Parts: sequence; structure tokens; C-alpha cells
Amino acid sequence: VRGASARVRIRVRYGETDKMGVVYHGAYLPYFEVARVELLRAAGLPHRRLEEQGTIFVVAETGVKYLGRARYDDEIEILAWVAGLGQASVRFEYEARLAGQPPLLATGFTVLACVDGRGAIRKLPREVAAELGRPA
Amino acid sequence: VRGASARVRIRVRYGETDKMGVVYHGAYLPYFEVARVELLRAAGLPHRRLEEQGTIFVVAETGVKYLGRARYDDEIEILAWVAGLGQASVRFEYEARLAGQPPLLATGFTVLACVDGRGAIRKLPREVAAELGRPA
Amino acid sequence: VRGASARVRIRVRYGETDKMGVVYHGAYLPYFEVARVELLRAAGLPHRRLEEQGTIFVVAETGVKYLGRARYDDEIEILAWVAGLGQASVRFEYEARLAGQPPLLATGFTVLACVDGRGAIRKLPREVAAELGRPA
Amino acid sequence: VRGASARVRIRVRYGETDKMGVVYHGAYLPYFEVARVELLRAAGLPHRRLEEQGTIFVVAETGVKYLGRARYDDEIEILAWVAGLGQASVRFEYEARLAGQPPLLATGFTVLACVDGRGAIRKLPREVAAELGRPA
Repeated sequence: VRGASARVRIRVRYGETDKMGVVYHGAYLPYFEVARVELLRAAGLPHRRLEEQGTIFVVAETGVKYLGRARYDDEIEILAWVAGLGQASVRFEYEARLAGQPPLLATGFTVLACVDGRGAIRKLPREVAAELGRPA
Repeated sequence: VRGASARVRIRVRYGETDKMGVVYHGAYLPYFEVARVELLRAAGLPHRRLEEQGTIFVVAETGVKYLGRARYDDEIEILAWVAGLGQASVRFEYEARLAGQPPLLATGFTVLACVDGRGAIRKLPREVAAELGRPA
Repeated sequence: VRGASARVRIRVRYGETDKMGVVYHGAYLPYFEVARVELLRAAGLPHRRLEEQGTIFVVAETGVKYLGRARYDDEIEILAWVAGLGQASVRFEYEARLAGQPPLLATGFTVLACVDGRGAIRKLPREVAAELGRPA
Repeated sequence: VRGASARVRIRVRYGETDKMGVVYHGAYLPYFEVARVELLRAAGLPHRRLEEQGTIFVVAETGVKYLGRARYDDEIEILAWVAGLGQASVRFEYEARLAGQPPLLATGFTVLACVDGRGAIRKLPREVAAELGRPA
């Protein structure tokens, strides 16, 4: 599957660097999340609409591979796409690069599980699956 | 006023350092908060008990002066105390040092406002004020 | 003094909210920093140029007053300006609002001290002071 | 391999919660890191000693599975152990639980790569490998 996708640019904040002068490895999770949120918004599924219809996504699994280093004030480009749709889950994948430069800084993925207001697993609504599965 | 007080030790985490190799200036707010939470717990006012009786504290103002530098894996000692009690607010003050060393790393303060569940200012409950005003 | 200024928009990230559903009070320090960095860049003083000429700014003091609440995915507009120039320091002030809405979310300030590579206080270079003191 | 191990307790800080009232998924990476640092210290390999002998560890890969939810002020127990030793890398694995309770909150792993001061991969020093491979 290669469904909906989005591309965002994020400038590295000072507090996101660590004592090696590079982006702290933990900062990629919020970066990926920014891209995922934009993907959902672009697919017509902003979190407010999802919440109103009772679709809550929780992070079930995540992973990151680190391939390069970004520094303070660098601009990072994140590409996010829907890489898989389960009965009650969505898999997103990511690539991070310095803006305009081909080498990868990091790759990663997140699996979101769909739950209801009490935290029980629920099926991904058909229209949500349709929007996420449609290549942008 | 010099009311309830508490002392905590916090080891600097890697992600809390910045590219100068020292603790990011923004990290002192969570550090002070850890000390404030321990103060409340030691005064018999853990947040769960406060919430149950409808006392919600929100941060109204904060400030920090930076006087020294801490590094990765350093152990920081924070002293927190109640420095003032208003009708609907509490002022906490803080001193941060490297554990066992007299020079100050930072000083700071936080003013918490007391609100009810809808966010309206409410008077500090008498027993909460009594606990906070009592020197430990 | 009302010197150089800049205006930035920042979208609230999920991890910057707290269990009250609003922006964690500590998140305003990185937000203000993003605005300050853009101010310096717009004034022709990107951090790389400052570092090359040996001008290092360290945070000496900061403060925030909280007046409203922002939520996840809200867009916050930060106005930053140079409010004072000392012999070896610069005072920045900030106002944060929901984008396009007049009420203030927060106001704040940061005093940066100018130091050399060994951490000793040094005079603010004349051309840096000139750029910062000039209204944009 | 089940080599050196360590167990740490971490109290959830307010700013580490998100608007769902639970620990932000990105907070587990710094939690795991705290456990890993204690493991290295307990194995006689504090970062200062490693740095002095020119052994620098950088994060090459990480992953987390989320199985439960922790809340503000909960105490989390992290167990970390060395799960594999490569020529130039170390694999750590983690289990997170509410202190004293068997159900898992999260599991995870980190692969650290060993590099020299210029960032080139270097072999894991024999004595470092010996310390890490020895069950505690």
C-alpha cells in the first residue's frame, strides 16, 4: 500500500539538540508526528473531526533508524505516507532528510491503533480507511 | 512567609542537554515542577487528593535566573519552598545547585493560581493554605 | 527601546500538551526561542555568523506570565522584539496569541548575556547592537 | 545473550503527559535512556570513562511497543539489559511496568553503534564488551 502522503519542513529548535551538537534521537518522534498530523489534515481527517466521530488513534508501536545527523537551525524535510491499513490499525512510514538534500537522516514507522472512547479496539471506519488508502 | 519546603535530587538526562553541552535553559521548569510536586506530597497534598476536593492549580507566572551551568549526568539538588500565600494563589521559590556544592546554578519562582473545574478563580481552601504555610 | 522584531507562527504539537489538554507551561520557552532566532536571522545575525565572530549568547534570565490557554493543533503567533540593550546583554520581550485573535495567551521576556568562547562576559559588538536596536 | 542489566524507577513528570492524560509515547525514549545510563554506570562504564578512552556510542536504531498506559505521578520501573553484542554495536532491550505491577506498559530496544571522535565506526573495545556481556 502507498496511500495518502504529506511532506513537511521543520526547523531544528535549540532545545532539540543534545551535547553532541546534533538533533537528540528522541526528537524524531515528535517530528514524525508533525508530518502524520499534516497527512491526516490533508486527507480531510483533522483530529477534531476524527474525535467528533469517536475515532481515536493511539500509538501502538514505533521505530526509527538513524542514518545521518542534523544540527541546530537545519531545516528537515519529512515525508510521511500510509504504508498499510489493518482492520483496526494504520501503519505510517517516514523519511527524514535535510531540506533539498537526497541523503537520508532517518527512516521510521508508527502503527496507530483505532480505539473507542473507553480504549477498546474498534474497526477503522470505512470512510477513514478510504481516505487514508487513496494516494494523494 | 517561609512555609512548607522540599528537597529533591535530579540527574540530568542526555536529552536535556543542548549543543553547548549544558542543561537546556528550558529544562529548569520541569525540574522545579518535580520539586514542587514533592513539596505538595510531603505536605499531605498529593495532586490526586487536591483534584478530588476540586482544587486545581494552574501556573500563572514563572521566572528563572541562570547563574551556573550543569552538565550531562550531573546530579542537581533543588530546594523548593512556599514563599507566599494569596487569597487564591501560592508562590513557590526554588534554588538549584549541583548536589553537595554551595554555588547556585539557578533560582526561580512559580505562582500557582487556584481554579475550579471550569477554570474560574477560587479561594485557596483553608486547610490547603494551612498545610502550605506550615514550615516543614 | 523597541528595536528589531519578528513574528512567527507555531502549531502546537501533540507532545507539547499536558493532561489538562492545554499547552504545557514549559513549552512557551522553546516557542519564544523560535521567535528570537527568527528575529536574529531577520536582523542579519544568524547564529552561525554570530558564532564565527565569537559572539555567544547565553540565557541569563527568563520569565513568563500565562493569561490564556492554547490547545493541541492550535496555531500560536509569537511577536518578539528587542526591548533593551545593555553593555553585554540584550532583553527580548514576547507576546503570544492564538493566530489572528487579539487576546494574549502569554507574555514573556528573556535576557541574553554576551560571552566569549571561555564563558567570560564580553561587550556586545557595536554592529550587533546596531542591528538589534534598529526597528524592523 | 543476556548480559549486564539494571533497574530504575522514574516518576512521571507533569510535562511528560499528553492531552489523553497518559504518558506521551515519545517520553519512553528518554526513560529507556535513563535505564541504559544506569546499566553502563553499574557495569563500571560511566560515560565520562567511555569518553576519555575515545569510545562514543551513538543511537543507530530504536523501537517501542506500547502495551499499557501510565499516568501523571505514576512510578514506572524500567528493566534494561544487554541483549546482543556486535563487532561495533550493542543491543539493549527494555521492559517498562508500573512499579510493583506485573503487566507491561511498554517494551523496547536500542542499538548503539560505537564510533570514534570523527564519527567513524570503530570496534567495540574488548574490555567494554566484556563488562557488557557479563550478567549482573
